[in-house]
Amino acid sequence: MPPYEYPLLLKHVLESGVRWAPEQKITYRDQFEYTYADMYQRVLQLAGALQSLGVKPGSKVGVIEWDSHRYLEMYFAVPGIGAVLHTINPRLAPADVAYTMMHAEDEVLIFHEDFLPLVEKLRPQLTTVRKYILISDKETPPDTPLADTDYEAFIRSASPLDELPDFDENTQATQSYTTGTTGKPKGVYFTHRQMVLHTLAEMVTLGMLTDFGGITKRDVYMPLTPLFHVHGWGVPYAMTMAGARQVYPGRYEPAMLLKLVLTHKVTFSHCVPTILQMVVGAPGIEKYDLSGWKIIIGGARLTKGVAQQAAKLGIHLYAGYGMSETAPLLTIAMLKPTLLDVPEEEQMDYHISTGVPVPLVKLRVVNADGEDVAHDGKDRGEIVVRAPWLTPGYLKEPERSAALWEGGWLHTGDVAVIKPSGYVQIVDRLKDVIKSGGEWITSLELENLLSLHPQVAEAAVIGVPDEKWGERPLAIIVPKGDAPAADDLVAHLKQYAAEGVITDWAVPERYEFVEALPKTSVGKIDKKALRAQFGGGI
Amino acid sequence: MPPYEYPLLLKHVLESGVRWAPEQKITYRDQFEYTYADMYQRVLQLAGALQSLGVKPGSKVGVIEWDSHRYLEMYFAVPGIGAVLHTINPRLAPADVAYTMMHAEDEVLIFHEDFLPLVEKLRPQLTTVRKYILISDKETPPDTPLADTDYEAFIRSASPLDELPDFDENTQATQSYTTGTTGKPKGVYFTHRQMVLHTLAEMVTLGMLTDFGGITKRDVYMPLTPLFHVHGWGVPYAMTMAGARQVYPGRYEPAMLLKLVLTHKVTFSHCVPTILQMVVGAPGIEKYDLSGWKIIIGGARLTKGVAQQAAKLGIHLYAGYGMSETAPLLTIAMLKPTLLDVPEEEQMDYHISTGVPVPLVKLRVVNADGEDVAHDGKDRGEIVVRAPWLTPGYLKEPERSAALWEGGWLHTGDVAVIKPSGYVQIVDRLKDVIKSGGEWITSLELENLLSLHPQVAEAAVIGVPDEKWGERPLAIIVPKGDAPAADDLVAHLKQYAAEGVITDWAVPERYEFVEALPKTSVGKIDKKALRAQFGGGI
Repeated sequence: MPPYEYPLLLKHVLESGVRWAPEQKITYRDQFEYTYADMYQRVLQLAGALQSLGVKPGSKVGVIEWDSHRYLEMYFAVPGIGAVLHTINPRLAPADVAYTMMHAEDEVLIFHEDFLPLVEKLRPQLTTVRKYILISDKETPPDTPLADTDYEAFIRSASPLDELPDFDENTQATQSYTTGTTGKPKGVYFTHRQMVLHTLAEMVTLGMLTDFGGITKRDVYMPLTPLFHVHGWGVPYAMTMAGARQVYPGRYEPAMLLKLVLTHKVTFSHCVPTILQMVVGAPGIEKYDLSGWKIIIGGARLTKGVAQQAAKLGIHLYAGYGMSETAPLLTIAMLKPTLLDVPEEEQMDYHISTGVPVPLVKLRVVNADGEDVAHDGKDRGEIVVRAPWLTPGYLKEPERSAALWEGGWLHTGDVAVIKPSGYVQIVDRLKDVIKSGGEWITSLELENLLSLHPQVAEAAVIGVPDEKWGERPLAIIVPKGDAPAADDLVAHLKQYAAEGVITDWAVPERYEFVEALPKTSVGKIDKKALRAQFGGGI
Repeated sequence: MPPYEYPLLLKHVLESGVRWAPEQKITYRDQFEYTYADMYQRVLQLAGALQSLGVKPGSKVGVIEWDSHRYLEMYFAVPGIGAVLHTINPRLAPADVAYTMMHAEDEVLIFHEDFLPLVEKLRPQLTTVRKYILISDKETPPDTPLADTDYEAFIRSASPLDELPDFDENTQATQSYTTGTTGKPKGVYFTHRQMVLHTLAEMVTLGMLTDFGGITKRDVYMPLTPLFHVHGWGVPYAMTMAGARQVYPGRYEPAMLLKLVLTHKVTFSHCVPTILQMVVGAPGIEKYDLSGWKIIIGGARLTKGVAQQAAKLGIHLYAGYGMSETAPLLTIAMLKPTLLDVPEEEQMDYHISTGVPVPLVKLRVVNADGEDVAHDGKDRGEIVVRAPWLTPGYLKEPERSAALWEGGWLHTGDVAVIKPSGYVQIVDRLKDVIKSGGEWITSLELENLLSLHPQVAEAAVIGVPDEKWGERPLAIIVPKGDAPAADDLVAHLKQYAAEGVITDWAVPERYEFVEALPKTSVGKIDKKALRAQFGGGI
């Protein structure tokens, strides 16, 4: 008898969690609650129903859904039969949604009723889709010609599988798209092996955090990053493996989010700064007890201003870093074991940094010649990485894929320094760096310092053409209450220049005040739009 | 440019820990201390020296050494260049040590000076060994014709590698031997991929323990399982990846162990019950503060008596389960997240059970027909497992390998029940089960209950032939102080029979009292020897 060759499959992540905590609860909004054992049964049912529908290994199943227990079921059932889960981003422009679905060649679309208008608009273009399955939060799903069946009826339509099958661990599991600065969205994709290793490394990291931000068995998890964004940062997989208590909030509505956090005593989440603002910016928020809530902030820089504001509410923020191309986890800004006794004020500086690579991630910061920069906190370069869970390229785009992997390292496009302590600090996107007088000025550092001014709610800094210097920084400010005078902001920044935090010549001369900053579909400041608005006119 | 294909190699475990905590300390006895950064440099030096010596991918390097920083270096440097680390068990009979070395085809032997007499005896038989490297704790190593060089001189003899090379993750990394009940030791072997996955799953598990026994950044680790036993249970790899503070005790001497625990405030260890007895059985032990010390007990059943005795000293014990064939980790007896609020007395029952399979381990308890037994805590069967880190077989023994993997599951030879709570409880070794009147009596349960009697230090139960019943249990007792009367022990056990813990007919009629129980080379009770001594005479 030959020994069993154990493939790394996502079903093992699920089975580990179910075996460990079958009676553990998973909650959906204020509507529904079930156990891991129930969830596992529904995954087996959904897998059986998909097979009955003719979904085969390699078939693409597109999903448009809010964060729900159903999405979690699909996270396991679709890849569980060897098919590919395409997590569609409904915040893209409708034409781009259709583009990604046709580019991925989705055969089945499972979508929430809130997106009926979108699906109606797209349907003529969705030539590869042969089955539409409607998700409804209502007891009686709406009757619509746009769907062939509804999710609950579909799940009940076939016998459950006895268990999920074995197959090659290098089988593609997921497909998603990232919006580039130019052109169409780019497809990234990941195998079962990659996602299992990502899950293990993420859970190891969260376990190693136990003195700050780490996960214990008493934690209650609620995602605040949409599950259609790079596997919800991988955390739903990690939390399921750990058998953690999970709460899924559906569509992000501030009142519902707050209600769920308070009702279930949520202690662990992750989100972009914009979503955090939505929750902690709610009027009267300070009346509520949010203490003990740990939130990983990613997708954009975590500023000290935001971290301090959250700390007043008892919320611990710390940064994580990754991107669609990297599944996404690369670094988490946890305290090293040798730093546990640094003063609390100083600890926050570590927690808001980009952090330290998690186990198995090799991260370098290299100059234009591909050589490592000095780890002195000053020398800048691009972050390039290797890890067992990076996309092998952009789907059907050999040239962009080759550029992504130039020299055998994945190029992130992020500019960073490495401090003597080993902590990484991103200072800019390669394309957002401001080149002034032959030197680089980093917009992110200026934005962070501007955020510390009491009259600044949000700040963005872009480079604008300058005859003498090539480029100069321009600050675009969303005021908190009355707009501050430009001179006050200059004085505020000069203080930090005097302390050596920034150089004197990095302080912008020009300030614009706006009501809101344009954001991309993933909630990041849209600098492309800002450059279009302000870049040409000055 | 093709994407980089990331192999799972032990070097990544090392690099992760070094990057995360370069200034973290590793201590050897009261003699030596260095940082992870220093250790990494020495690993690169040792790797370079081995290559200069002509050690090639696939070469076998045998090691006979106590638990030391040097052994940790060899854990990474030998597999790090694609060679195979053979962790030799010096407690085997000398003839068996020679057998394992020749069976593995060791080319190099690195050995501690304490084993000079052994090496002198074996040397004529070691025909494949072409280089002998001596490890010494003294400043000037002893001058001996038995060694070609000493470890420190050897490390300095060549340039360090810039980094450890890449190669196929399915390259063999380690080789070790397990003593069978009959015949020669059997060789088990593991690849880099297997050891990386074992490390990740072990660290995930320890992180998931945070409410009891889990590892935090403040923990100080000291192994109490020899590093020549199945990778020191994998914990040196896991702790290095986590950047933990590590203390290596060298040869196990009670006074030194206690000194190191107190000096460095050791909080995490693992051992067999025998070693625990050596430490906590020291006279006057209750004077010392051992509180907060967490110890995983494996290799033999953790009895309630021992757990209670340790708890009085503030030591938390919990069980782990695995074997040489399984790298070794299969289960850890941690509390499930849904059991956190059970009363403390009851918690101990979970902690001394065999536990719950760790992530990625599939564990079944099957009857003779290979069917799953009921999970009712009563139905017995053999534990069979699948995991990504099980030996593919016994080296050069196709028949035994086929039997080990019968039906595509690794057969552990352990008899167990699964409780409705999902916890596994081993009740016996398949070969130690006592068959009485057509029913099974489990020796381990009886031994556990006997250990709770105040006048019992240790107990072993074996089956002896009986005309009427086929077999009957015989209890062999090491008394604590005066030997108890056999009638007292019968009354003690009948109490548990009355409570339904055991059946009435399981209570032995016969008791023998001895000064000590024979032990195997790994510290387990040697039932083969007991059967030879008592089995034939009754």
